[in-house]
Amino acid sequence: MRAAFLPNSVRRLVNELTKLPSIGEKSAFRLVQHLLSQKPEDLIALEAAIKMVREQVILCAQCFSISETEICPICSDYQRKTQVLCVVEKPVDVIALEQVGGFRGRYHVLHGLWSPMKGLSPEKIKLKELFNRLELSHKGLAHKGLAQQNDEKVTELVLATSATVEGDATAYYIADNIGHLPISVTRLAQGLPKGGELEYADEVTLRYAFEGRKSLNF
Amino acid sequence: MRAAFLPNSVRRLVNELTKLPSIGEKSAFRLVQHLLSQKPEDLIALEAAIKMVREQVILCAQCFSISETEICPICSDYQRKTQVLCVVEKPVDVIALEQVGGFRGRYHVLHGLWSPMKGLSPEKIKLKELFNRLELSHKGLAHKGLAQQNDEKVTELVLATSATVEGDATAYYIADNIGHLPISVTRLAQGLPKGGELEYADEVTLRYAFEGRKSLNF
Repeated sequence: MRAAFLPNSVRRLVNELTKLPSIGEKSAFRLVQHLLSQKPEDLIALEAAIKMVREQVILCAQCFSISETEICPICSDYQRKTQVLCVVEKPVDVIALEQVGGFRGRYHVLHGLWSPMKGLSPEKIKLKELFNRLELSHKGLAHKGLAQQNDEKVTELVLATSATVEGDATAYYIADNIGHLPISVTRLAQGLPKGGELEYADEVTLRYAFEGRKSLNF
Repeated sequence: MRAAFLPNSVRRLVNELTKLPSIGEKSAFRLVQHLLSQKPEDLIALEAAIKMVREQVILCAQCFSISETEICPICSDYQRKTQVLCVVEKPVDVIALEQVGGFRGRYHVLHGLWSPMKGLSPEKIKLKELFNRLELSHKGLAHKGLAQQNDEKVTELVLATSATVEGDATAYYIADNIGHLPISVTRLAQGLPKGGELEYADEVTLRYAFEGRKSLNF
């Protein structure tokens, strides 16, 4: 920021805020301006909330979603099916699916996708942990924290990675590596988004939509 | 946020972040997710930066721009003209103009515009302070913090409020109230934005652009 007349503290906070995704210098300054117009209590609350997250949030030892306990509330919820496991890229994807509300199985968060372009090899994401989890479930062994529940035999794996090159590659990589286990593997449908007009769909989407066409016979 | 399985600390931070302008629940969660992927030191740095701003930033006693000293660096810069005063709505406007770089006078930040719709009467913004400042300058009296510099006689007032109804109203209100002082009052030009195509300009902009047309005779 060229503005040399700005208070150091403001420049420092602008600098910290621009490290956040999709916040540029101008938005950062607008945020600072907004913060300055708030009561000191509100800023203290924000500081405390960041501190709490920093100190208390860990990854669930089983699914690697965010949690404040070793095993997250979803993994600890014995009303959820243990036979269906949904594989996603990021914790925010769990929220997206939970807000839809239909899925009653459990999750596995990869924390990345296999992406040679970004230097993310399969070892750098939670794939080994996924394969271990699946193997263990078929040997009748559950995660140590979940010893009381030894019926988690995964029979369906839903690959809910994004419909991108990396999402596809990761999905195929997973499917390839668990072929020896009796697990049916599915992938989220790809096609026209609801409300999407055919005219504006890109070629690849249209091809997938066509190939994945469904029977309307009753 | 419906997601009841989310850790309390995450929900609390999401809640704090959605209080910021133009950050909804999903963006807030994305921000939290990003923060969680950072090193603890980075979060500590962010907390500290907010704290520093909260504790150290005040408004300049003369121009009401943000500052860490009673009189801000711009008001204390004796190389800047004291005769030209630019009136803006918000501190961020000062930055916008400083980044253009051409203006070498000083500022007065109103912290709002006269807006009956939003319940902002002239008394709620720094208008009385502006009028006082102008009166004092013409009596040869400067702000107490600037006693060494008693030549601040404002002769031009640039009204750089936005080209909105509130910006216009505030500008006219100011011009109306200082008619008795020998100050030339100007307002930022309104017209086509650079690069703006005539075809896509709205009617009001086009009318202003037409009325404000400039001679190209050399």
